[in-house]
Amino acid sequence: MPPMKFCPSCAAPVAERIPDGDHRPRAVCTACGAIHYRNPKLIAGCVPEREGRILLCRRAIEPRRGFWTIPAGFMEIGETLQQAAARECHEEALARVEVGSLCAIVHVLHAEQVHVLFRARLAGGFGVGAESLETVLLDERDLPWAELAFASVEFTLRRYFEDRAAGREGLHYRTFD
Amino acid sequence: MPPMKFCPSCAAPVAERIPDGDHRPRAVCTACGAIHYRNPKLIAGCVPEREGRILLCRRAIEPRRGFWTIPAGFMEIGETLQQAAARECHEEALARVEVGSLCAIVHVLHAEQVHVLFRARLAGGFGVGAESLETVLLDERDLPWAELAFASVEFTLRRYFEDRAAGREGLHYRTFD
Repeated sequence: MPPMKFCPSCAAPVAERIPDGDHRPRAVCTACGAIHYRNPKLIAGCVPEREGRILLCRRAIEPRRGFWTIPAGFMEIGETLQQAAARECHEEALARVEVGSLCAIVHVLHAEQVHVLFRARLAGGFGVGAESLETVLLDERDLPWAELAFASVEFTLRRYFEDRAAGREGLHYRTFD
Repeated sequence: MPPMKFCPSCAAPVAERIPDGDHRPRAVCTACGAIHYRNPKLIAGCVPEREGRILLCRRAIEPRRGFWTIPAGFMEIGETLQQAAARECHEEALARVEVGSLCAIVHVLHAEQVHVLFRARLAGGFGVGAESLETVLLDERDLPWAELAFASVEFTLRRYFEDRAAGREGLHYRTFD
C-alpha cells in the first residue's frame, strides 16, 4: 500500500507523528487533526477437496501470475471469513464449497496480511474464473510443489496433508517475514 | 470509519464506482485513478486466567466506558495475532501473559471488525493500564455479566467457561450484525 500523503477527510497534507497517548507514529492530518490508522488486512481462503483430490488455480493476475494457489483473496466488508473463502472459490474456480474447520493462520508481516485458510468440501463442478488461467483437481502426489504462488499456500497444503494422513484436523500457525 | 472524500495519494476528490473487472463500488480517485479498498479490521484479545480466575478490565475509554472487557484491541502492522493479544494485555492491565489456543472468532459486521480471541495464562501480577479504570481477577461466579462492554466478550467468556467445565479447548464462531 502506498504511504498516505493527504488526508482522506479534508485533503490537507498528513504528517507522521505519535499522537498523544499513543506509542507509534501515525498519519495525522496537519489541518483537521484526524488520525489515520493502518492495520493488517485479512486474506481468506480454503483447501477445496473432492474425493480426495484438491482444487488448485493457476493465477492469471499478479503477483505470481502463472503460479499455483488455493482459492484465496482479500476479505470484504460485510462478510464472514467463511463467506469470503467461499466467495473466492466461486470467483477463481466457479466452484461451490462447504467451508469446514480452520487449518492455518499465517502472518505475512512484510505484506501486512493475515491469511486465514479453512478446509472445504467441493460439492459439484468447477471452471476457470476470471482471475485464473486454469483450474485442476489433483491428487497429493501430483501437486506442483515447486510452482506454488506463495509460502502461505505451501505451508497450508503441507499441514493439510499431514493432518489428513493422521486423521485429524489441526489448526496451524506460521509467521513469514 | 468516516467515508473517504479525497485521494490519500494525490488529494483529488474520490468517487464511488465499480472498477473494471470488479463487482463492488470502491473509492476511486477522479484524477489519478487509484482504487482505495476498505477492508475489515482485526481485533486481537485473550482471556487471561490465573489459578482459575479471569482478568477483566473496566474500560476508561469510549466506546462503552465504565463497562468490563477482556483485554483486546486493534492489531498493528508488524505483529502476529498472539503478539497483539499479549500487547493489549500489557497496555490495559500491565500484565504479562502466555497466549494459548484460539477460543473464538467473532465477526462484528456493523463495526467492520473480526475479533480473534485466545486463551491465555497470566503469569505474574497486573495493574491498571492507561485505557482501564480498574482491573480485577474474578471467579466465574463473580463475573459482571450484565456489565460487559461487548457482545463478543460475553460470547467468548461463555464459550470459555463451557469448554473449561467440559475439559476441552474448542474454537467457536459467531456473527453479530
